[in-house]
Amino acid sequence: MTYEKPSVTVDCVVFDDRDRVLLIRRRHPPFAGQFALPGGFVDPAETTEAAARRELREETGLEARDLRLVGVYSKPGRDPRGWTISIAYLVTTDAAAPKAGDDAAEVEFRSDWHEIDLAFDHNEIVRDAIKLRGG
Amino acid sequence: MTYEKPSVTVDCVVFDDRDRVLLIRRRHPPFAGQFALPGGFVDPAETTEAAARRELREETGLEARDLRLVGVYSKPGRDPRGWTISIAYLVTTDAAAPKAGDDAAEVEFRSDWHEIDLAFDHNEIVRDAIKLRGG
Repeated sequence: MTYEKPSVTVDCVVFDDRDRVLLIRRRHPPFAGQFALPGGFVDPAETTEAAARRELREETGLEARDLRLVGVYSKPGRDPRGWTISIAYLVTTDAAAPKAGDDAAEVEFRSDWHEIDLAFDHNEIVRDAIKLRGG
Repeated sequence: MTYEKPSVTVDCVVFDDRDRVLLIRRRHPPFAGQFALPGGFVDPAETTEAAARRELREETGLEARDLRLVGVYSKPGRDPRGWTISIAYLVTTDAAAPKAGDDAAEVEFRSDWHEIDLAFDHNEIVRDAIKLRGG
């Protein structure tokens, strides 16, 4: 029996010491030019936690310290490319200036994230991360 | 760009009022004949939460009430069929007698789950669910 398979991505929610959220500006479609959480596709030889650390490093230059699972996002239609399930982590890092790399055209900590229409369901993910943090 | 995709499954941890864990005996390989948590593959048109409710109903006849995310299990090699990521939920149900169905040859609440070599990494999932419950 074969089953259709989803793509699986990871997304990272990183706050700085002023409670700003780390966002990247997407270089590629979908949502090219829009702000999003750092993240990307999981590779077969890694855990989802390892994928989160790798994507954060590739897109922002930051090294993840601790990861806490925020949630699993799987609502049909959440990604225009097709069936995609995302695993979101609340990630702590050492204090350092992020540097845009890989699929990120820009990267910055933003305090006004709630006023920005983030890509995918990333506004919901940030809100859930804040609840998890007890904020 | 195309990416290799994983299979995605859900697993349900259900405790009864005596803190026993709901286990099914697997009808099919891998681990045929061994005990496991109720669960199975996620379908494209459903969320992972809906998949957990559906699989629990199909395999045990029980209706899920509340779901809490236990964890995401993605260690390479955890499923002999290939790359498979599982999303595990701690599930409450109405008190009712489970009935084996679908891929489950038997179903029962077991107090000795920790002495049983459960399929996949299901012993780890039950331990994590107990921690989440604060047990």
